[in-house]
Amino acid sequence: MGKPIITLTTDFGTKDGYVGAVKGVIKRINPEAEVVDVTHEVEPFDLLEAAFALMNSYVYFPKGSIHLVVVDPGVGSQRQPLLIESEDFFFVGPDNGLFSLVYDNERIKEIIILSNRKYFLAELSSTFHARDIFAPVAAYLSLRVDANEFGSSAKECIKFTIPQPKQTRQGLVGEIIHVDKFGNLVTNVGAELLRNKRVAGITMGRRQIKRVAQSYFDIPREKVGAVVGSSGFLEIAANQQSAQQITKSKIGASIRVAFQ
Amino acid sequence: MGKPIITLTTDFGTKDGYVGAVKGVIKRINPEAEVVDVTHEVEPFDLLEAAFALMNSYVYFPKGSIHLVVVDPGVGSQRQPLLIESEDFFFVGPDNGLFSLVYDNERIKEIIILSNRKYFLAELSSTFHARDIFAPVAAYLSLRVDANEFGSSAKECIKFTIPQPKQTRQGLVGEIIHVDKFGNLVTNVGAELLRNKRVAGITMGRRQIKRVAQSYFDIPREKVGAVVGSSGFLEIAANQQSAQQITKSKIGASIRVAFQ
Amino acid sequence: MGKPIITLTTDFGTKDGYVGAVKGVIKRINPEAEVVDVTHEVEPFDLLEAAFALMNSYVYFPKGSIHLVVVDPGVGSQRQPLLIESEDFFFVGPDNGLFSLVYDNERIKEIIILSNRKYFLAELSSTFHARDIFAPVAAYLSLRVDANEFGSSAKECIKFTIPQPKQTRQGLVGEIIHVDKFGNLVTNVGAELLRNKRVAGITMGRRQIKRVAQSYFDIPREKVGAVVGSSGFLEIAANQQSAQQITKSKIGASIRVAFQ
Repeated sequence: MGKPIITLTTDFGTKDGYVGAVKGVIKRINPEAEVVDVTHEVEPFDLLEAAFALMNSYVYFPKGSIHLVVVDPGVGSQRQPLLIESEDFFFVGPDNGLFSLVYDNERIKEIIILSNRKYFLAELSSTFHARDIFAPVAAYLSLRVDANEFGSSAKECIKFTIPQPKQTRQGLVGEIIHVDKFGNLVTNVGAELLRNKRVAGITMGRRQIKRVAQSYFDIPREKVGAVVGSSGFLEIAANQQSAQQITKSKIGASIRVAFQ
Repeated sequence: MGKPIITLTTDFGTKDGYVGAVKGVIKRINPEAEVVDVTHEVEPFDLLEAAFALMNSYVYFPKGSIHLVVVDPGVGSQRQPLLIESEDFFFVGPDNGLFSLVYDNERIKEIIILSNRKYFLAELSSTFHARDIFAPVAAYLSLRVDANEFGSSAKECIKFTIPQPKQTRQGLVGEIIHVDKFGNLVTNVGAELLRNKRVAGITMGRRQIKRVAQSYFDIPREKVGAVVGSSGFLEIAANQQSAQQITKSKIGASIRVAFQ
Repeated sequence: MGKPIITLTTDFGTKDGYVGAVKGVIKRINPEAEVVDVTHEVEPFDLLEAAFALMNSYVYFPKGSIHLVVVDPGVGSQRQPLLIESEDFFFVGPDNGLFSLVYDNERIKEIIILSNRKYFLAELSSTFHARDIFAPVAAYLSLRVDANEFGSSAKECIKFTIPQPKQTRQGLVGEIIHVDKFGNLVTNVGAELLRNKRVAGITMGRRQIKRVAQSYFDIPREKVGAVVGSSGFLEIAANQQSAQQITKSKIGASIRVAFQ
């Protein structure tokens, strides 16, 4: 067993010291906890982007890792503070859908609405629950406090669903659901939908892509192509360029995949 | 006791490897030291912003933590390299006012001008004292070298003062002193000045704000409101938007708080 | 001996969770490994910038540190995955020149083409070898797996050379090879070329600089000057301003150093 790991995924940026406060709170409660930055550069208030960052990373961490995820436009409102315990991980953050993209992949053991103030900071602000509630709860979790200690059990938490691709006679109609740092346009077409199929072509707006490339490097320079990306979705991408900049496409733009 | 913690707050960005050098120097001198990033995204040369990041985070760390803060436009000039030991923490960085916002909150035990070259890197540049002086000093501090070993005692260090709000017959006149990552406009009106008062209204330019909201979420959409922020100051803020972008206000803009 | 250190230098940004995945993979294989961020903000696909970040930082880390460097436009192509063992460090990443600026400073013991799939993730993507190959190899290295276990020995790896300054009758002609976060223009004129020389002047375009300043602070405000920077190269710089913004110079711009 290594030291307990607490990962951080937020939209705080770092320049104001807010993330520093979160780290300090954790280390003061459990100096042995290891804090690992996933990101603090989620677009402000963008729940889906945070959900993506979490989905792309959480499963690789050791079992028992605690994933603290805070994008929290409803802080101080009626939205609930949440702890989800799955068979392999803990997830801590506001109940606003942040865990939507991992929820169905995990065997959920317990959903807890955080209410036991014994595990919060003594002085509670209405603007910074990452520091005052979520960080201390994560730190006490890393000290092996039982999940049920933190509040009462709930049956559900808020989930949003990403749009699903539609089957058509020719193939599939999907859409762009994420644009990554390199400008790759990640679609909602999961790799499993392409298995044992032969792609006849992919259409996005007026662009035609003839085949699924093996890698980014396999896409002709100055063109956009398609590739199965590392998140497990079909991506519209370019070779050492930003497909987003070339195509000016945005989240929600539809793509058609035709099968042979 | 956990491992000794050294926090880093700089304006270096990360892309040039300067922060990497600082971390390497620390780990080579004390592999047991735990280096925690607060931020490297302070606006270049912005001492006040660095002081804010430090103020927002330092106090949450375990006692004995070493706070390395380097925004250093005067590197290589006559400005002194500094170590401040307070009852709870150590602060290491250039003597240019960076510690102004924590100085009055801490019981200062010792101010040391760093001069003992035994604790500097052997080759000393005139452009990168974070690597050559401050990092090794912080690392040796984390090995429990006594503060007095590093140089000679000083009576004072440089402090700048942030402008204080003025009492008026109607209430207070304050000003914007910081804009955070979310575009919240942090004023110099401390929460304690509002305690046991009833706010009749807040004026910023031609904007009227009727009350202090309970949270960001409590502010009507598309409007700016006021909220007591997590740093302990009154903020002009918006609900899932940037108050800075809405109001175009800048640091120094004045606000009036009227009491009933 | 401290815990084995793995440093990370990438162009991934953090917002997509790709870096989180890399960290998770490492921690799952070796919970005792200490992961240290050098940077994830290298300009996308910019091999030279990554090589600079590595050069500026790697040597300060404890002996035995493992430097994971991934800027990988050729991922999924024929480019080889690489491990270099030098007397003091390990370097892991794609064979595309990333290690060019450290190669000649290190006593190379072994160059290994990574091929032993036992040390890769079980499912191998063609788009994300940092997660699937380089992170697990670095993690197993930190568990003291012998370098030769990972693949077969190679005689060479890809190196690019940065342009060298030319000697002239009057002095030297060099060029800008890097622009740092502060807008300092780093040239290819190494400090050793200026030793025991008296600089009569430096010319860049129509700008004349009379002397090499002692520090940034020693440059007159609103002017550009020259200084020997912390990377060991002559820099065109300004005093609390960006020399890049003042001069609009770019990488490749030539400078002339005249000796007395």
